[in-house]
Amino acid sequence: MNSQELYEKYKTKMHRIADVRNANALLQWDQETYLPPKGAKFRGQQISTLSEISHQLFSEDELGIVLQELLSKDDLTAEQKRNVELTFEDYTKNKKYTSQFVRALAEQTNKAFHSWIESRKQNSFPAYEKELDKLIQLKKQEADVLGYKQHPYNALINEYEKGCTVELLDKTFSNLLPTLKDLLQKISVRPQVDDSFLHQSFPKQQQWNWGMHLIKQLNFDFEAGRQDISEHPFSTSFNRHDVRITTRIDENDFANMSWSCIHEVGHALYEQGLPEEHYGLPLGEACSYSIHESQSRLWENNIGRSRLFWQYYYPQLQSHFEEQFKNVSIEDFFRGINKVQPSLIRTEADEITYHFHVYIRYELEKRLIEGSLTTQEIPAFWNEHYKELMNIEVPDDKRGCLQDVHWSHGSFGYFPTYSLGSFYAAQFFAGAKLQIEDLENSLAADNVLALLQWLREKIHKKGRFYTSEELSKTVTGKGLDVTYFVDYLLDKYASIYTL
Amino acid sequence: MNSQELYEKYKTKMHRIADVRNANALLQWDQETYLPPKGAKFRGQQISTLSEISHQLFSEDELGIVLQELLSKDDLTAEQKRNVELTFEDYTKNKKYTSQFVRALAEQTNKAFHSWIESRKQNSFPAYEKELDKLIQLKKQEADVLGYKQHPYNALINEYEKGCTVELLDKTFSNLLPTLKDLLQKISVRPQVDDSFLHQSFPKQQQWNWGMHLIKQLNFDFEAGRQDISEHPFSTSFNRHDVRITTRIDENDFANMSWSCIHEVGHALYEQGLPEEHYGLPLGEACSYSIHESQSRLWENNIGRSRLFWQYYYPQLQSHFEEQFKNVSIEDFFRGINKVQPSLIRTEADEITYHFHVYIRYELEKRLIEGSLTTQEIPAFWNEHYKELMNIEVPDDKRGCLQDVHWSHGSFGYFPTYSLGSFYAAQFFAGAKLQIEDLENSLAADNVLALLQWLREKIHKKGRFYTSEELSKTVTGKGLDVTYFVDYLLDKYASIYTL
Repeated sequence: MNSQELYEKYKTKMHRIADVRNANALLQWDQETYLPPKGAKFRGQQISTLSEISHQLFSEDELGIVLQELLSKDDLTAEQKRNVELTFEDYTKNKKYTSQFVRALAEQTNKAFHSWIESRKQNSFPAYEKELDKLIQLKKQEADVLGYKQHPYNALINEYEKGCTVELLDKTFSNLLPTLKDLLQKISVRPQVDDSFLHQSFPKQQQWNWGMHLIKQLNFDFEAGRQDISEHPFSTSFNRHDVRITTRIDENDFANMSWSCIHEVGHALYEQGLPEEHYGLPLGEACSYSIHESQSRLWENNIGRSRLFWQYYYPQLQSHFEEQFKNVSIEDFFRGINKVQPSLIRTEADEITYHFHVYIRYELEKRLIEGSLTTQEIPAFWNEHYKELMNIEVPDDKRGCLQDVHWSHGSFGYFPTYSLGSFYAAQFFAGAKLQIEDLENSLAADNVLALLQWLREKIHKKGRFYTSEELSKTVTGKGLDVTYFVDYLLDKYASIYTL
Repeated sequence: MNSQELYEKYKTKMHRIADVRNANALLQWDQETYLPPKGAKFRGQQISTLSEISHQLFSEDELGIVLQELLSKDDLTAEQKRNVELTFEDYTKNKKYTSQFVRALAEQTNKAFHSWIESRKQNSFPAYEKELDKLIQLKKQEADVLGYKQHPYNALINEYEKGCTVELLDKTFSNLLPTLKDLLQKISVRPQVDDSFLHQSFPKQQQWNWGMHLIKQLNFDFEAGRQDISEHPFSTSFNRHDVRITTRIDENDFANMSWSCIHEVGHALYEQGLPEEHYGLPLGEACSYSIHESQSRLWENNIGRSRLFWQYYYPQLQSHFEEQFKNVSIEDFFRGINKVQPSLIRTEADEITYHFHVYIRYELEKRLIEGSLTTQEIPAFWNEHYKELMNIEVPDDKRGCLQDVHWSHGSFGYFPTYSLGSFYAAQFFAGAKLQIEDLENSLAADNVLALLQWLREKIHKKGRFYTSEELSKTVTGKGLDVTYFVDYLLDKYASIYTL
C-alpha cells in the first residue's frame, strides 16, 4: 500500500472514532439541555458504552500497525506527518487504559455528577463527598497508569495542557499573585465604581434576544451552530459545522448572561474555524485547553469589556433596554462592567480576582492528587483560602466548593488552563494590535471581523499543529509571558480606578 | 456457567447494543429537531457509523454462542426463554446481512432521502426516480437475502409485521374495500358537515400550550419524555424513561397539530409503559408496528374523535380558544372533526379514505418488489388509482407519490401496518368497552386513566412476548377481525351523516 492509500486507511479509522465520540458529545449536550429527568439513568449507561467503544476503536492493534507504518514513510506532507505523530502519541497514551478502567471512570463520573446535583440542592458538601472521593481515587490511579515525572498531578494536567507542570504553574502563580494582591490592595482604597445598573430587572426574553443579537454580531454562524439554555453555560462541537453553546439568564443580573454569551462564542468561533479537511484528526482539533480558553477570554474581556467595543455596541444595548440604560453614560457602563470586588463565584469574578479562584482550585487539586489533603477537608481548605486571599467569608458550600461541575466530569488538571487562557489572551491581543493595521479604530467601528480573520489565520486554522508554547511563538514571537497580562490589567484599572 | 450467569452475560451484550442504537436514535431525533443546517453532512456519517457498529455488535459470534447455549437450558423463566428465542431469531436474520450490504443500503437510503428532498422542491417525481430505483433493487436483493415463501414482498413485510403476508393483506383489503366504498358513496350523497371553524386563525403559542395541556391530560409523563417541534411529527424512544414526540403547528388548521399530538402520545404511552427490566431485550420492545399503530390510532380516533372524550374536553378547549369556538356547539365540533372527504394527503385523511391511501401504497410496493411495475410507472399508477378509488385528480407529484418519506428511509412493507393499526385499535377498543366497567361514563368524566391502565396491563407490559395475532387473542379472545373496525365506522358515521 502506498503512503496515500495508507493515509486514507488511517483517516477512515479516525473518522469512525470521531463519529462515535461526537455521538457521545451529543448525548452529553442533550443531558445538559433537553433530557427529561428520569432519562438520566440510562443516559449515563449510554455514555459509558459509547466511551468504551471509542476507547476500544482507538486501541485496535490494526490502527497501531497503520500508524507505525505511516511513521516510517518519508513522502507524507508536513500536515499529514504531524497528524500521524500526534495520533500515535494519543494512541500510545490511550493504550495504557484498560476498557474496565475506562468504564469504571465513566460510571463513577456519572455517579459523582448526579451526587453533585443532589448535594447542590441540599447545599451540603458531605452529601457529595463519598462519590467525589471515589472519583479522586480513580484519578490517582489514572495518574499512575499514565505515568509522570516528579508529581502525579503532572500526568493529569498533561491531558489538558501538554508540557505543563506543577513546577511551571507554581512558578507562574508565585510570580503573579503578589502583583495581583498589590493591585487589589490599591484598588480597594480607591472609591468603588457603581454597577448597580446591572442589577435592575432585565426580562428573560429580552435578555435572550439581546444575547442572540450579540453573538450574531460577533460572527457566530447560526447555520453551523445553535445556542440553548442550560444550568451552566458551556460550548461543545460535533464538527466545525455543528458547534453548540449554551447560556443561562438571571433576570436581576444583566452581566451573567451577556458575558457568558461572549465567552462561549469565543470558544465557538474557534471550533467553527477549525479546518474541515482534518475532521477527526489532530489538526482538526483545537491546540489545547489554554488556547481554547484564550479565545473565549479574549472575546469576553479584552474585547467584551473594552471601551472600544462598547463605543459601537452601547447604543444598540441602550435601544434593547431603553428604560434600564437611559441614564447610564457609556463611561459609567464601562467602569461598572469592570468593577473589581472579591466575590464567591469564579464565573462571575472580575479579571483580577478570577485568578485567585483558579489558584485555590489548583492548590486543592494538587494536594488531593498527591494525597496530602483528604476529600473531607475540601470545604475547610476552600473557606480558609478565600478568607486569606480575598478576605471573604464563604457562607455555604453551594457558593463555595460545590460551585463548579468540572470535578464531577472527572476534570482534574483543567482549572489551571483557565488562568493560562487569560494570559495567552492578553499576549495574543497585544500581538493583534501590533499586526493588524488600525485594529482599535476597526473595533470602535464594529469591525470585529478583522480580528476574527487574524485569529482564524494565526490560530484557528492551525488546529493542533503546534503546542501552546510553539503557537505562542509563531503568533507573538515569544512563548507564554505573563507580563502582557499584567500590563493589560495595570493599564485598564489605572484608568478605571485612577490609580 | 449456570443459566442465570449466562443470561446475565446475554443481557450485558444486549444492553451494549441497545445503548448504541439509542444513541443513534438521539442523533436522528436531533436531526429532525435542533440540528443546524450545515451539520447534516457529518450527521449522516455519524448515523451510518453507529448503524454499522450496532450491526457488528449484533453479529458477533460470541453472542450467537451464548444464545445457542441459553436455548439448550431448561431452567430459564418463561420470559427469559422468550427473550432468548426472539433474540436468536433476530440474530439469525441479522447475520444474513453482510456489512457491505448494510453499508450499501444505508448509503443508498441516504442518497434516496436527499434526492427525495430535492425532487419535492422541484415538485417532480422523475428527479427522484433514479435513486429510488436503485434502492428498490437493493430491497429486492434484501428479500432474497432474507428468504421468503410465495412472494418476495412477504420478506419485507415480515420486518415490520411478523407472520403477515401478501395473501393475508390481499384478503383483508378485498373484504374491506367494497364496504368502505359503499360507505363513502352513502356519505357523499348526504349533506356535508361543516368544519370551517377548524380553519380560523389559531396562534402558534396558544396551539402549543393547548397541545401540551392535552398530552398532559392524556397522562404523558413529562418527567420521562418531552415534546418538540419538527417538520413531520414522530415519536421516538431511548428507553421507557426518555420518550420523545414531536408535532408541527399550522396556524390556519387547528386539526393538524391537535390530533398529531394525540396520535404521537398514543405511541409514547406505549413506550413509557414497556417493562423497564427488559431494557434492550425483546420483551422491552413493542410487539409490532401494527400494535404500535393501534395505540396511536386508538387514542387519536376511537378516543380523540369521540363524543365522549370531547364532552369533558370541549369546554377546556373553548376556554383556550374562546373567540374561535364560542359559536361552535359541541355537536358541530364533533361532526366537523369527523368530516369525511376524499383528499390528497394520507396523514390528513379521515378514518375511511385513509385506508385507500394505504391500499394504493401497498399495491404499488407489492408490484415494485415483484417486478411487475417499474419505478417510472409509479406516478401514473398512483394518479389512476386516486381517481378510481376516491375520484380525485392528483394535481402534482408533491401532493401525489412524493408525499411520504418512508420509501426514502428504505421502509417497504411498512405502510400496511398503518391500516392494521386502525383495525386492531377498533378491536381493542371494543374489548376495552366489554372489560372495563363503566368505561364510557369514565371517559365522559375525564377518566382516561382507566383505559390507559387496561392497555398497560393487557398490551404495554407484555412487550414482544406475543405476536400481534397472539396478543389480539389474549386481549380480545380473537385474532385480527376487521368487522370491529367496520362496525365502529358504520356506527360513527351513521350518527354523523344520519345514514
